[in-house]
Amino acid sequence: MIDVALLGTGGMMPLPNRWLSSMMLRYNGSSILVDCGEGTQVALKEQGWSPKPIDVMIFTHMHADHISGLPGMLLTMGNADRREPLLIVGPKGITRVVEGLRMIARDLPFEIEYKEIGANEESFDVCGLKVEAFRVCHNVTCYGYSFSLERAGKFDAKRAREQGIDIKLWSRLQRGETITVDDMTFTPDMVLGPSRKGLKVTYCTDTRPLDIIARKAEGSDLFICEGMYGEKDMLDKAKEHKHMTFYEAATLAKKAEVKELWLTHYSPSLPNPKAYTKEVREIFPGTVVAKDGRTVELKFEED
Amino acid sequence: MIDVALLGTGGMMPLPNRWLSSMMLRYNGSSILVDCGEGTQVALKEQGWSPKPIDVMIFTHMHADHISGLPGMLLTMGNADRREPLLIVGPKGITRVVEGLRMIARDLPFEIEYKEIGANEESFDVCGLKVEAFRVCHNVTCYGYSFSLERAGKFDAKRAREQGIDIKLWSRLQRGETITVDDMTFTPDMVLGPSRKGLKVTYCTDTRPLDIIARKAEGSDLFICEGMYGEKDMLDKAKEHKHMTFYEAATLAKKAEVKELWLTHYSPSLPNPKAYTKEVREIFPGTVVAKDGRTVELKFEED
Repeated sequence: MIDVALLGTGGMMPLPNRWLSSMMLRYNGSSILVDCGEGTQVALKEQGWSPKPIDVMIFTHMHADHISGLPGMLLTMGNADRREPLLIVGPKGITRVVEGLRMIARDLPFEIEYKEIGANEESFDVCGLKVEAFRVCHNVTCYGYSFSLERAGKFDAKRAREQGIDIKLWSRLQRGETITVDDMTFTPDMVLGPSRKGLKVTYCTDTRPLDIIARKAEGSDLFICEGMYGEKDMLDKAKEHKHMTFYEAATLAKKAEVKELWLTHYSPSLPNPKAYTKEVREIFPGTVVAKDGRTVELKFEED
Repeated sequence: MIDVALLGTGGMMPLPNRWLSSMMLRYNGSSILVDCGEGTQVALKEQGWSPKPIDVMIFTHMHADHISGLPGMLLTMGNADRREPLLIVGPKGITRVVEGLRMIARDLPFEIEYKEIGANEESFDVCGLKVEAFRVCHNVTCYGYSFSLERAGKFDAKRAREQGIDIKLWSRLQRGETITVDDMTFTPDMVLGPSRKGLKVTYCTDTRPLDIIARKAEGSDLFICEGMYGEKDMLDKAKEHKHMTFYEAATLAKKAEVKELWLTHYSPSLPNPKAYTKEVREIFPGTVVAKDGRTVELKFEED
């Protein structure tokens, strides 16, 4: 129901064979891109996914390794003849930064709309998903995001019948409509069982570990989180540069009781992140030391 | 004496396995980068060349595919602890565009100086090379550049001796110094033979063919020129978008009597530029349908 691709897994600078960290979600014909560093459009092309249906771009923060691929991506979307408006979401100031970058990407065949996040926590809906933005702790304003697809309860034909609701109204009620017929009002909760578990993806880079990250990631099917360093003795460096070690990310995943953790945003000084897989799984067994281009199709659990 | 690397050969957008067009010249410990599209820093890394000694960046024009890699390159140079100032050269307006892009590359440990080119033709010296900028014909202001390393005449000991010049002065005169001793002035031309052939590289993309290109490229050891389209029936499209076909570039190379032509800036619609090698060599046999990362070390001819 939701396709996820981790387009790149690098931090700081793109490397041969390691694109900068970026995630794409596809749901219901729309695509949401989270961060767009230098080379993200090539990573997307390698994935075989199109830039044209990107309806929303969401930025964690405005450091170059998370946004420098934007002008090229906009032009490529324009060349693909995108006409529908694009929504760009990011921390306060994103409009000014994007307009600066647009000095080299002027004539686009689509409008850009902006949503700036100012509060420490903010919720909004895009493309049928609920997004929760939460401020994290980096050396510039930076946000993590969780994306939730809610799932209504199962249709309960027995209850509908017992209440004498006309069968012609059932499908509309099931779709969430409230219907009034002859002064009688029927609401979806009259025919639906309790809400079922939906899907949740949380994405978080460029921060020290914080309680709010575990809280917002709670119960995620997939938690994509930065692990800048795999070496245990890099903790001081992680603290200094406001990043996390693999073990700090795994501890957050454990606390949040997520299903799976994908590590990303590796330091350019780390040539082989996978070498630390065993150690990090001792903290959280569901850890994947992800590589560029990792994908998953998240589906609702069976009833 | 001059190392040249054609870092990428793509036009419009970077592709998997084809970086955007960019050239690096190395001479005498300095590096000059011409154009810096998205991914150029990765192409440079693949080449095994360092970004730190880039003393000058020269831009043909301000379209994204020629400049969007700049913020990332600047940050990577900063991370490599470059401290010396960087000179950025480009068409009028380059300062404003670069300052816009620097919204995401603020804290650099080096200064940036600018040189804006306003005239149709302009000459200046950088890093010991003479640069000639010449305006070409694209849909925005765009320049081609030729880089020349001049070579003084051979030292003529017989002439120096005949004029009774003290042997202690010979090496200084040979290096180009003018010396006055006891009211007698000695100039280098008194001891040097006629100038010898130097080295010349001309770089030109994003333009229709023009006489001035052939004139400025005249006698180049290497002429790197755009060839957007290999298909002969794309001439109308080349005209419409102000680009060149392979055959137009080869005709310029022939007219300019260059030693070698490297084609670059291929359309993303052209998957196999090399397929047109035979046809283009019918016009100019010294044509190389270049691939990313092609290098040459240009040396003075033997005396």
